[in-house]
Amino acid sequence: MLTHPAGEGPPPNHNDNERRFRELWDQIAPIGRDAGSGGYLRYAFTTPELALRDWFRAQADRRGMPVTVDGNGNLFARWGEPAAPGAVLTGSHFDSVPHGGAYDGPLGIVSAFLAVDELRAAGVTPSRPLVVAAFAEEEGARFGVPCLGSRLLTGALDADRAAGLRDADGVSLAEALGDRPAGPRPDLLGGWSCFVELHVEQGRALVDQGTPVAVASAIWPHGRWRFDFHGEGNHAGTTRMADRRDPMLTYAFTVLAANKEARLRGAHATVGRVRVEPNATNAIPARVTGWLDARAADPETVAGLVEAVRAKAAERAGRDGTEVTVTEESATPLVGFDGDLGGRLAALLDAPVLPTGAGHDAGILAGHLPTAMLFVRNPTGVSHSPAEAATDADCAAGVTALARVLTELTGR
Amino acid sequence: MLTHPAGEGPPPNHNDNERRFRELWDQIAPIGRDAGSGGYLRYAFTTPELALRDWFRAQADRRGMPVTVDGNGNLFARWGEPAAPGAVLTGSHFDSVPHGGAYDGPLGIVSAFLAVDELRAAGVTPSRPLVVAAFAEEEGARFGVPCLGSRLLTGALDADRAAGLRDADGVSLAEALGDRPAGPRPDLLGGWSCFVELHVEQGRALVDQGTPVAVASAIWPHGRWRFDFHGEGNHAGTTRMADRRDPMLTYAFTVLAANKEARLRGAHATVGRVRVEPNATNAIPARVTGWLDARAADPETVAGLVEAVRAKAAERAGRDGTEVTVTEESATPLVGFDGDLGGRLAALLDAPVLPTGAGHDAGILAGHLPTAMLFVRNPTGVSHSPAEAATDADCAAGVTALARVLTELTGR
Repeated sequence: MLTHPAGEGPPPNHNDNERRFRELWDQIAPIGRDAGSGGYLRYAFTTPELALRDWFRAQADRRGMPVTVDGNGNLFARWGEPAAPGAVLTGSHFDSVPHGGAYDGPLGIVSAFLAVDELRAAGVTPSRPLVVAAFAEEEGARFGVPCLGSRLLTGALDADRAAGLRDADGVSLAEALGDRPAGPRPDLLGGWSCFVELHVEQGRALVDQGTPVAVASAIWPHGRWRFDFHGEGNHAGTTRMADRRDPMLTYAFTVLAANKEARLRGAHATVGRVRVEPNATNAIPARVTGWLDARAADPETVAGLVEAVRAKAAERAGRDGTEVTVTEESATPLVGFDGDLGGRLAALLDAPVLPTGAGHDAGILAGHLPTAMLFVRNPTGVSHSPAEAATDADCAAGVTALARVLTELTGR
Repeated sequence: MLTHPAGEGPPPNHNDNERRFRELWDQIAPIGRDAGSGGYLRYAFTTPELALRDWFRAQADRRGMPVTVDGNGNLFARWGEPAAPGAVLTGSHFDSVPHGGAYDGPLGIVSAFLAVDELRAAGVTPSRPLVVAAFAEEEGARFGVPCLGSRLLTGALDADRAAGLRDADGVSLAEALGDRPAGPRPDLLGGWSCFVELHVEQGRALVDQGTPVAVASAIWPHGRWRFDFHGEGNHAGTTRMADRRDPMLTYAFTVLAANKEARLRGAHATVGRVRVEPNATNAIPARVTGWLDARAADPETVAGLVEAVRAKAAERAGRDGTEVTVTEESATPLVGFDGDLGGRLAALLDAPVLPTGAGHDAGILAGHLPTAMLFVRNPTGVSHSPAEAATDADCAAGVTALARVLTELTGR
């Protein structure tokens, strides 16, 4: 039951909303921030991310929202009757990429709690429960699988396989969680009617459009492919150029090929991670491993891109006397968000509709329930970097938009 | 005073010599060996390298050779009167590159102790002292400066600058040594008349020549240049290719340019070490650093090579929207070993004379006293890798050659 007609929501008061946003935001801003880069080191289940989880519980507690843990590292704070069906889910994740920005993830959680406050301040009593979520390891920065928490929850990732994933220090996910992951939770999924994730925009589209909030239409299909280049470790000083089998050359050629092939196709290709053995100045490497991140508007383009890069790498390996093997580490198909839900929210907010090249927990949940995303403008267009930004005014506008959306969705 | 005529030395007994070599070699073979790669992790002043130093002291002690420490991490075991001038220095280093071979360094120290045994077994009483050396951090794998111990000893590296060098964990050299390095030791240098370093060959020249031992003529000029590529860290999924400033592209182009420019000049160029920030699969790097190892027969060729690579990197950076800075981290000029000494030893041993592209402590000491090197055949031609090899028969032949050289040099 609503005290405001659907589609109106509480009246905006930008100054107060900005102040409330800044107040709550300042509580988490220092957590996990690297003094050197200004970026964040908030890896799943490490000290800073555990501190953010404690903060989540405290915020839920202050609002009288009991917290459910799902055994996969995900947290859910509930406003509404425990047994009531059709809950509306919102939220995002706390974890970051190495030296990532402040907003990617946490903005969706902070905004969710503030939207609850806006609903309550406006006297809204939702006729459906409202659940605020914090998903685990969305970035995949610690255990290598992005959207780890939502994949486990939905059964997209096998719990036994996940239990054995290890971080760079050899710690397994089961050790970090304190237990084997619980795996699929149809009992939880079945209680939710839809999911709306608010997220900072990770490109310049909203800057171009001159508006603070957009609705997402789809997530590009994307994936990660590991390229292992094997050569012969040798002395950098004494080995004649003609006697070398240097995998760094094959790697370098492949990086440039990926860039060229992506541009030819209007796709995105990135090699942002590399590992070299032994990684010594005076040693020709024995092995170089590079990770290709590939994305495009349709899966055929992604597949064609990866195949073209693989073929170029293999051809060059023949010339370098090296060998290359390619392993698909993850692949996520095109996610079209629920068109009805997205269209309804875009009309409600009078907001533009955008696709995105980034993966999100929303992309995983979209296979199980109607899902939508809201994007908040990022003046730098930069993300996964300390330069990621959002103004307090735009964040407050995002909270208000989310409050209107939640008012609409919990009222029907 | 010699009991054998100079130039003859003790009679060879290959079976016994091979057995004695294998016996002593087996004592150190397990120390610092990585079970996975079969290579060695013997970084200066770490547990395995400290164990090798203890072994050195025990070997010296068994032979009644008192050990001097020079305050720079180098050890010297002496056979002969403490005050007697004109000592003959021999030896090498214990430390390895990451996952390096067994022979690079330790072969020269083990051979030195066995040569002492051969001299004594043959009843040789040297008229000049004989000193066995173990130099510290020859590879530069821990603190980044190769031949660190011999550079400090000779004053080629400032002790205060060296004290502040840090390893990958942030430990300074002063902390690892337990004190600020002592710096130049003219008192020690002035007591030595010449230095002969025995070393495993790091190429295929001796395999081609079909002989187990050679004398070195010169060390190619060589150096290390750090290329820092600065771009803009950003999200791999959402950043349009046209909006990127990706330093990995400039790095990759530079790697290929270095290879091409070296081949054009008959020089050696290697990029075997790279560091990426943040080094995440879904992040365009903010910064990539690559180290160029460049060597050639003359310094003009090295300088021309580095300048050509720098120019290509800068040109590509302009196209990538990145910036590149180049820093010379070390540069070692052409080292021509003492021609008289090398010629004398080549005649004594009837051995071929070879140049080498590798740096050695002998190259540092050559600026201060007559210096020569002996190379022992390496059937794989591979070095700085677990595949580095030498047969026991060739190692025993190396010991015998060194014993003949030391008999000659200590007797005059």
